[in-house]
Amino acid sequence: MIHTPRNPLVTVDVIIEIDERIVLIRRRNPPPGWALPGGFVDYGEAIETAATREAQEETGLRVELCEQFHTYSHPDRDPRHHTVTTVFIARAMGTPQGADDALEAALFSRHLLPAPLAFDHGRIIDDYFRYRDGEPLRAIFKPDLSVFFS
Amino acid sequence: MIHTPRNPLVTVDVIIEIDERIVLIRRRNPPPGWALPGGFVDYGEAIETAATREAQEETGLRVELCEQFHTYSHPDRDPRHHTVTTVFIARAMGTPQGADDALEAALFSRHLLPAPLAFDHGRIIDDYFRYRDGEPLRAIFKPDLSVFFS
Repeated sequence: MIHTPRNPLVTVDVIIEIDERIVLIRRRNPPPGWALPGGFVDYGEAIETAATREAQEETGLRVELCEQFHTYSHPDRDPRHHTVTTVFIARAMGTPQGADDALEAALFSRHLLPAPLAFDHGRIIDDYFRYRDGEPLRAIFKPDLSVFFS
Repeated sequence: MIHTPRNPLVTVDVIIEIDERIVLIRRRNPPPGWALPGGFVDYGEAIETAATREAQEETGLRVELCEQFHTYSHPDRDPRHHTVTTVFIARAMGTPQGADDALEAALFSRHLLPAPLAFDHGRIIDDYFRYRDGEPLRAIFKPDLSVFFS
């Protein structure tokens, strides 16, 4: 490592839209539960590349990234270590199939989400559906910033 | 470190608006030039906290974060190592004063930016002014994603 101090780990997660539903994977490793497809960004790899790579590895889908949604960094969002994740919204066609770190991959609609959802992914998915409802990003994420000023 | 593979480093940069101008700092360390205030995120520190901390350390200003702008991760954006930076837009009042890693801090208007600008900060500032002109984020950043699909 070039740096000596401990640094947060960079990850990506992908909200893959197929028609009106999104793809979630059932995790092979702890913590158990369902989650967005995603994983660690390699050194030298752009986050966009990592997002499409992880989506394909875990769901078998070739995704097209539509937009960068938001970067989540709360130190407690992953119980194992501090990760900073950039979440992308992507589109795909076909049927997801769990592979690699995913035991299973399936499509879920907004009101029939599986449980438990790992990490802060329940919150991310909730933010995403608010955005899809037309709420502006600044409105969805503004209260969040204020948390860190108190 | 918990992980064994090499990981990109997490950083933040802040576009601080004072009236119609933005704050830039002249770097104390290589690479030389002007840049947005910013720096490394500590382990256990949210990116919002790092952004307000780095802004204050380098400019003396207490900033209020307005929104998360975009996360830039191209592996060549920093010549020293691979950094993934989340850029925030913030507001402040008062006069910036360079300190810590900043030899100098000053206010610049869009058409009188200093040179050279370090890293990809010229491009980030350009993206920011397009956004301020009313261009949607999806339009500003869409072409970027396609770079990584080719």
